[in-house]
Amino acid sequence: MATGMTNLRDVYVAGVGMTAFGKFKETPVEAMGQTAVRAALRDSGLARQDIDAAYCGSVMQGLLVGQRIVKDVGLSGVPVFNHENACSSGSSALSQAWLSVAAGLCDAVLVVGAEKLSGLGGGPLPIDTDDPEIEQGVTMPAIYAMRTRAYLEKYGGSIEQVAGVTVKNRRHAADNPYAQYREPVTVDEVLGSRPIAEPITLLQMCPNADGAAAAILCAEDGLKDAARAKVRILASVVTSGKFEQGYRDMTTPDISIRASTSAYEMAGCKPQDIDVVEVHDAAAIAEVLYYEALGLCSSGDGLAFLDSGATAIGGQVPVNPSGGLLCRGHPLGATGVAQVAELTWQLRGEAEDRQVAGARTALAHCTGGGIWGVDNGVCSVHILGA
Amino acid sequence: MATGMTNLRDVYVAGVGMTAFGKFKETPVEAMGQTAVRAALRDSGLARQDIDAAYCGSVMQGLLVGQRIVKDVGLSGVPVFNHENACSSGSSALSQAWLSVAAGLCDAVLVVGAEKLSGLGGGPLPIDTDDPEIEQGVTMPAIYAMRTRAYLEKYGGSIEQVAGVTVKNRRHAADNPYAQYREPVTVDEVLGSRPIAEPITLLQMCPNADGAAAAILCAEDGLKDAARAKVRILASVVTSGKFEQGYRDMTTPDISIRASTSAYEMAGCKPQDIDVVEVHDAAAIAEVLYYEALGLCSSGDGLAFLDSGATAIGGQVPVNPSGGLLCRGHPLGATGVAQVAELTWQLRGEAEDRQVAGARTALAHCTGGGIWGVDNGVCSVHILGA
Repeated sequence: MATGMTNLRDVYVAGVGMTAFGKFKETPVEAMGQTAVRAALRDSGLARQDIDAAYCGSVMQGLLVGQRIVKDVGLSGVPVFNHENACSSGSSALSQAWLSVAAGLCDAVLVVGAEKLSGLGGGPLPIDTDDPEIEQGVTMPAIYAMRTRAYLEKYGGSIEQVAGVTVKNRRHAADNPYAQYREPVTVDEVLGSRPIAEPITLLQMCPNADGAAAAILCAEDGLKDAARAKVRILASVVTSGKFEQGYRDMTTPDISIRASTSAYEMAGCKPQDIDVVEVHDAAAIAEVLYYEALGLCSSGDGLAFLDSGATAIGGQVPVNPSGGLLCRGHPLGATGVAQVAELTWQLRGEAEDRQVAGARTALAHCTGGGIWGVDNGVCSVHILGA
Repeated sequence: MATGMTNLRDVYVAGVGMTAFGKFKETPVEAMGQTAVRAALRDSGLARQDIDAAYCGSVMQGLLVGQRIVKDVGLSGVPVFNHENACSSGSSALSQAWLSVAAGLCDAVLVVGAEKLSGLGGGPLPIDTDDPEIEQGVTMPAIYAMRTRAYLEKYGGSIEQVAGVTVKNRRHAADNPYAQYREPVTVDEVLGSRPIAEPITLLQMCPNADGAAAAILCAEDGLKDAARAKVRILASVVTSGKFEQGYRDMTTPDISIRASTSAYEMAGCKPQDIDVVEVHDAAAIAEVLYYEALGLCSSGDGLAFLDSGATAIGGQVPVNPSGGLLCRGHPLGATGVAQVAELTWQLRGEAEDRQVAGARTALAHCTGGGIWGVDNGVCSVHILGA
């Protein structure tokens, strides 16, 4: 990264909005996106003519999805950029949106992540690939199953402890009206659910979901509500997997370590300064790996950290107060933006029954693309402060 | 647009490269992208470790195509952003890449556009749509057929004159080793080719193509070859279609007028200052419409302007010296980057037998997405100076 960043100006989250996540087979993706955009605009207090550009994140919604969304909310005509970066599509769009305001090219911009997975079916991926990993069944659940086994083998601990991630996140989701799965579950129920890839069961994997989330970013003078906490983007980092030959430790998500290290540096803070976190818990084990990768606890201490209650609401650093991907749901392109919506509400003290008391600094972590190998993919980290 | 742009620094095209465009059914899109990237890196004189980020443009190449390309050229690990913006995907990636250097976030970045259309077949579009325009067959050739008829009805002129665009661009392409179709054709051959949508024949429409193009952008101190003309990006504009009710004049591409007006303003120049142009001649009539939209001639004068030889190499303002989409070919995401490669060669005086003498200022125009209505879509304009 260049050192010219001293010219960048502060960027704020002026407004956020989202749909509930779930299975909405009858709702077009455009309508979901528009619901989120209208909510974010309303929340920001900005007028449509204040919006200089739109950044859209999605994975499988066809051509020009951003244009299709903004067309019917009175925003057509602005520059629209459609981003695909696997599960980090929404957060990649967010990062470019941040840059456009930080650079002074735009004063206020829309970010929208939208995805409809219902109806896509379980067919082949829409790519022409000879990738041996896909041919050999190294799908996401298979990768997370290997990570689970590798972690337990390396550091000890039990699958019951891993299942505790889902139990905690369901408890959080119970208080989140936007979450897909809000019924509390027990460790036994998690482990007794349908086997997916030994030792992973259904409730250790995030569900497919439909939904959308939106945010309005702006320079400081675009903030309209003087009584409300100002939520500023302290760091915005996107990085990609490093391809390397030889042995790779599946318990160490290198890409997340690099992204979060850069983000802490950009924000001028440390892991200990973070009050609330949304991580990319695509599987239960993933959340544990990310506690360690983000420096919330030491390597190998993740399960004990979870067991201590540190990452539950009321604990030292609550993780996934929204319920995370496991329970809020994971409509690919929407997830990264939904994380920022949740953290904005947390920093403003507007998260109601799932509020993390006194949250001042928050971190959103979003990663994906591992299906093409642990060496590929993408990771984004945003740090917000109020 | 904001007025904070005074903080932006100058951005240069340090290097360009591309594959020949054509039908390469046996070549993976990743390999095409990598060929272009290696050529652009070599041309720039920059080392792989100088590249801070990669911006990729493509439309139908599946997930994480940028990561799949950079993985095997020694660039994995950098931030990668994948852009989809229909036929302006490559130029949208270019615009965001420009911003990252202009803002000082990056010192040097890669832009790559890559698309493989061979093998995709003529099946349904990969979207779940109830769009009545698609159901009613308002495909791209149909839209251009209507534009052709509307233009000739409104301003007079003949289909023979329209066919002259293809004749001119084939003449240009004959001297372009990267072009897909290099055999000269006559007006009779253009009009005698297979009917597509009355009055459009096969040779009035751009072909499907496979190919890739790449560019390295950098701040001034990243330029390594002191003897070479410095190619600077004077303007980078992306805009989207404005949805409006009521009658729309199909001979007036509003989106291209708005984008080029903004670009001239950003560059501080006028249409008369432009020495060489690459426009988005997806159909023969399109080039004529864009002469007028870009202000190269007055409304209704496009065919006379063409007939005068003004837009041929050697004329007042040569358009599509590369052969354009009609003859160089149109691998969607690659096109916008290929335009900038061509113009960089022109501005450096390296375009060999198709060189536009004394070219100092150049304009690239790329637009698309009209399949969802003339009111939707995207347009980008870049102005380069040496």
